[in-house]
Amino acid sequence: MKHCHVVTAEQFERLHIEEIFRTADGLNETVAKNGGNDTLGRKLAGVIFYQPSTRTSGTFVVASQRLGMRTFYTPDAATFSSATKGESLEHTIRVLGGECMCDLIVLRHPADDAAVRAASLDVAPIINAGSGKNQHPTQALVDLYTIRNEIGRLEGLHVAMVGDLTYGRTVRSLAHLLAKFPGNRITFVSPPELRMRTDIKAYLLEHNVPYDETEDLAAAMRVADVVYHTRIQEEWFRDEGRMDLYEKLSGRYVITPELMNLLKPDGRLMHPMPIKNEILPAVDDHPQTAYFKQATKYAVPVRMALLTLILGPNANPTWGWRKP
Amino acid sequence: MKHCHVVTAEQFERLHIEEIFRTADGLNETVAKNGGNDTLGRKLAGVIFYQPSTRTSGTFVVASQRLGMRTFYTPDAATFSSATKGESLEHTIRVLGGECMCDLIVLRHPADDAAVRAASLDVAPIINAGSGKNQHPTQALVDLYTIRNEIGRLEGLHVAMVGDLTYGRTVRSLAHLLAKFPGNRITFVSPPELRMRTDIKAYLLEHNVPYDETEDLAAAMRVADVVYHTRIQEEWFRDEGRMDLYEKLSGRYVITPELMNLLKPDGRLMHPMPIKNEILPAVDDHPQTAYFKQATKYAVPVRMALLTLILGPNANPTWGWRKP
Amino acid sequence: MKHCHVVTAEQFERLHIEEIFRTADGLNETVAKNGGNDTLGRKLAGVIFYQPSTRTSGTFVVASQRLGMRTFYTPDAATFSSATKGESLEHTIRVLGGECMCDLIVLRHPADDAAVRAASLDVAPIINAGSGKNQHPTQALVDLYTIRNEIGRLEGLHVAMVGDLTYGRTVRSLAHLLAKFPGNRITFVSPPELRMRTDIKAYLLEHNVPYDETEDLAAAMRVADVVYHTRIQEEWFRDEGRMDLYEKLSGRYVITPELMNLLKPDGRLMHPMPIKNEILPAVDDHPQTAYFKQATKYAVPVRMALLTLILGPNANPTWGWRKP
Repeated sequence: MKHCHVVTAEQFERLHIEEIFRTADGLNETVAKNGGNDTLGRKLAGVIFYQPSTRTSGTFVVASQRLGMRTFYTPDAATFSSATKGESLEHTIRVLGGECMCDLIVLRHPADDAAVRAASLDVAPIINAGSGKNQHPTQALVDLYTIRNEIGRLEGLHVAMVGDLTYGRTVRSLAHLLAKFPGNRITFVSPPELRMRTDIKAYLLEHNVPYDETEDLAAAMRVADVVYHTRIQEEWFRDEGRMDLYEKLSGRYVITPELMNLLKPDGRLMHPMPIKNEILPAVDDHPQTAYFKQATKYAVPVRMALLTLILGPNANPTWGWRKP
Repeated sequence: MKHCHVVTAEQFERLHIEEIFRTADGLNETVAKNGGNDTLGRKLAGVIFYQPSTRTSGTFVVASQRLGMRTFYTPDAATFSSATKGESLEHTIRVLGGECMCDLIVLRHPADDAAVRAASLDVAPIINAGSGKNQHPTQALVDLYTIRNEIGRLEGLHVAMVGDLTYGRTVRSLAHLLAKFPGNRITFVSPPELRMRTDIKAYLLEHNVPYDETEDLAAAMRVADVVYHTRIQEEWFRDEGRMDLYEKLSGRYVITPELMNLLKPDGRLMHPMPIKNEILPAVDDHPQTAYFKQATKYAVPVRMALLTLILGPNANPTWGWRKP
Repeated sequence: MKHCHVVTAEQFERLHIEEIFRTADGLNETVAKNGGNDTLGRKLAGVIFYQPSTRTSGTFVVASQRLGMRTFYTPDAATFSSATKGESLEHTIRVLGGECMCDLIVLRHPADDAAVRAASLDVAPIINAGSGKNQHPTQALVDLYTIRNEIGRLEGLHVAMVGDLTYGRTVRSLAHLLAKFPGNRITFVSPPELRMRTDIKAYLLEHNVPYDETEDLAAAMRVADVVYHTRIQEEWFRDEGRMDLYEKLSGRYVITPELMNLLKPDGRLMHPMPIKNEILPAVDDHPQTAYFKQATKYAVPVRMALLTLILGPNANPTWGWRKP
């Protein structure tokens, strides 16, 4: 590969993650002090989203701008781009990443293999900002950075993942990253219909990460360092014509202030957001919630760190994705 | 409040308005001479619109860019943002205005209480760019700045407000501001179905601003210093299933070149635009129309002034909105 | 005209084109070396698209940003702007191009006369980025720049134009430009239903440009220096309720690797993109395809050159459009 791509969470080894987080620490300070820097002042980011998003696209736009980049932001590529005229993803990427065009492309796309296809072309660095039901690697890095900064360590953690574990891509990517550090264990809390898929469980077994599965949220909240809650993804059920099941499952695990009282004193509630009704508004200001910081204070510097390490002066990351 | 918010027109007192206009005068010159400045070079504006608009969003994007700001612009937040996944406005604002994210948020939203809710969170300065049928305070400042520069004074004015006075938010906000200056009077010209609502009339009575109501446009044009025309807001009628009434009222007050001849020699025709058919195209080039300048030459510097006074060096505005 | 507008391909004479291309050469090097310059650092471009497009809007956004410009980009003006409230194009342009607003407007609009109407207002420089079925002059300049750089000359060329010659606006504009240089000839390859319209043929006759018409693609590929292929424009057929004809014509001229072997050794295949199914994916990496470079490496510098020549220091182009 000529360019450095971010495609999967697995591509990052422990040392890589630590380098990214150290870089993020420095950028966090820079933003607090000066609003950003101009390191990437003549570089251009394409932020190309085929699916709606405020949070991910917003933090990438902000991250690129706080590094001085110019940004070409297409919030609904599926409707407004030449996609409507039948162009292939390959052609769109070859054009947007072609000579004189974007120096890097942040891509969200509904197809599971979109990021792999885009990165394989190798015309410009690709950052996968969510591909299908599959991977959302930068979210996983943000989640791990949140845990590190809120809990203070990345080892010996007990993480409870709650909710839609079948369709939620963030929990899948996070499970991959937790397996890179020693002593972590995971409790999967879900209704039987939304269990974590077997590929992740096989991966955890292979990496000696203990996990258990339960339907009992209260029990998990009592023992976990981090409760990572997720939204039941209505859109996947709608696409598959199973709204009856969605109605049944939605609201099954609702975090209340009472449940928050079960958390250990230094435990944290995380969520990738958006939150619909699976966390009551009364929980928003509880001191042990971390989801707003996760979406802002931790999300922006991690994404700035990736951009800096890929495009900055002397950039030469060793963690670039390799075609299997 | 930790941050300075622009929520209502009423929050500005006479001295505040004069400070904003002096600042706008200086910025007007700067734009004419140098295209802008870099005062807010490391600041980031979120321009978040849940309803379509070219003019207001465009002038805010331009205003922020002519101050050197970076801009995160979402032209249809309702469709493309996480709004479609059921996120509350509160969560969206807490994320967009969170640490490392936008330094200020310009918000247009269909709910009457949207700006109050957003500002109450106090996570970042909020500028209300139109909330429901209610308030559009920066438009009111732009309108008043137009009057000051075109007529030469803000006192002793006779302003005729014409058209849709029930649903038009600009006339409501402008009425509030005119009441801050002595000697002003207002003539409301509308069909009986679209009269100014009683809350504004009560406010004018309380502040000793004489007003009268009429259906006679020609008579009002003869005596007013400023004729402020407005569009019948088709969208509100459509939402309420009253298109029959819209058809009846639309086209009731159409400004023709003949009507323009009734204006006093130094009178002006204003309009917040967009104009549909309530002003004939032949009027566009009449020397007494002010609506194009109102939308550009006066709109941009006033919005630049607000941004500068809220975010600039030594910013410490005393006119910030306070929660009632 | 107070401002310099790009409305038609015909407005450019041979000397103008050569000046634009020399400027583009320099900018190409600048982008390769430094990512761009800051020549237009305080200028603001409005990129206003009433029809979907990735490529044209993207290259204009990129071109403006690589010159240091600020950009107000509205990817679907028809839906999100005040167009939905019934505003005329004239009003939108007078506002977007008004004092303090955009220093230049790049406009794509479905009406054939949109660019003429916008430029006639003369409130700010207009660049026509596609108007109706009619003109797309900057694409024609990009196409010609591609031919010059890939073939090495602009004279004595044999260009085969293939596909939808009735509705394709790029071939119309390119035909105009080819006629400015001596010794060029054109072969039109299309089904009888999609022949080049008579106005262009009359223009070629008048300018002594030999042309012929055929349905035989293979024969044309053997003799042409440049094969300029185009997509059958599904959207026009759909709008006119003639999808039956579209189905019949679509796929009539499909470029295969076998057909590519018929090309002369220094011949090139061009296409304005997007490509649907009229060129097989297997052709994408053939060394004689030029369409990716046409869309990126050649498109950006030509558009940068236009912006620089219109807005840059000492700008005084003699090729500005004049109202007929």
